[in-house]
Amino acid sequence: MSTPVIQLCCPPVLTGPLSQDDAEQLAAALRVIADPARLRLLGLIKNQPDAEACTCDLVEPLGLSQPTVSHHLKVLYEAGFLEREKRGRQTWYRLAPDSLGILRDALDPNVHQRA
Amino acid sequence: MSTPVIQLCCPPVLTGPLSQDDAEQLAAALRVIADPARLRLLGLIKNQPDAEACTCDLVEPLGLSQPTVSHHLKVLYEAGFLEREKRGRQTWYRLAPDSLGILRDALDPNVHQRA
Repeated sequence: MSTPVIQLCCPPVLTGPLSQDDAEQLAAALRVIADPARLRLLGLIKNQPDAEACTCDLVEPLGLSQPTVSHHLKVLYEAGFLEREKRGRQTWYRLAPDSLGILRDALDPNVHQRA
Repeated sequence: MSTPVIQLCCPPVLTGPLSQDDAEQLAAALRVIADPARLRLLGLIKNQPDAEACTCDLVEPLGLSQPTVSHHLKVLYEAGFLEREKRGRQTWYRLAPDSLGILRDALDPNVHQRA
């Protein structure tokens, strides 16, 4: 079981010098979403009815193959950006609450380290 | 002269489906800072006296060679995250106003496209 990178992270970048460990955790979280297909997946899922989507809803709007979409969803899930639930033969995805908010706080010059 | 990627970007991720072009611009901006050394440079510069630093101030705290630090500073400058000014033989860097704020807005579910 991998530990979600956004659970490990994210210290604020600007409120003091970052340690190497903190910088590596935040960089790892940013790398996960620094990908056009993954950014589009987050937007597509958030804007579906009930803000959830199965892989089948995402293949056509993204214009990528089903295995490629499934891979991106797996990476986003393992990093902690998505939650998922199996219903019958389909897996449904929704945004993990406030996962992008953790990154926003890390980039905010006025936010200090979370407890 | 390269065009700063954060001038091109950043459409909000969550307020509607992202186009492929918008997603590529935002991903490019995120890739620039998805690097531990560059994140540490932003924090080090922001926390120097007067919030500015020359390369010579940054080599020792970062623990990297001067050419490596200069390369990271150049990438951050060309992407639009840093401003720079030549004074004598030294180049001084400071954070470009609100450059990280543009990325924060892009990750905010309540922010709509800037005019």
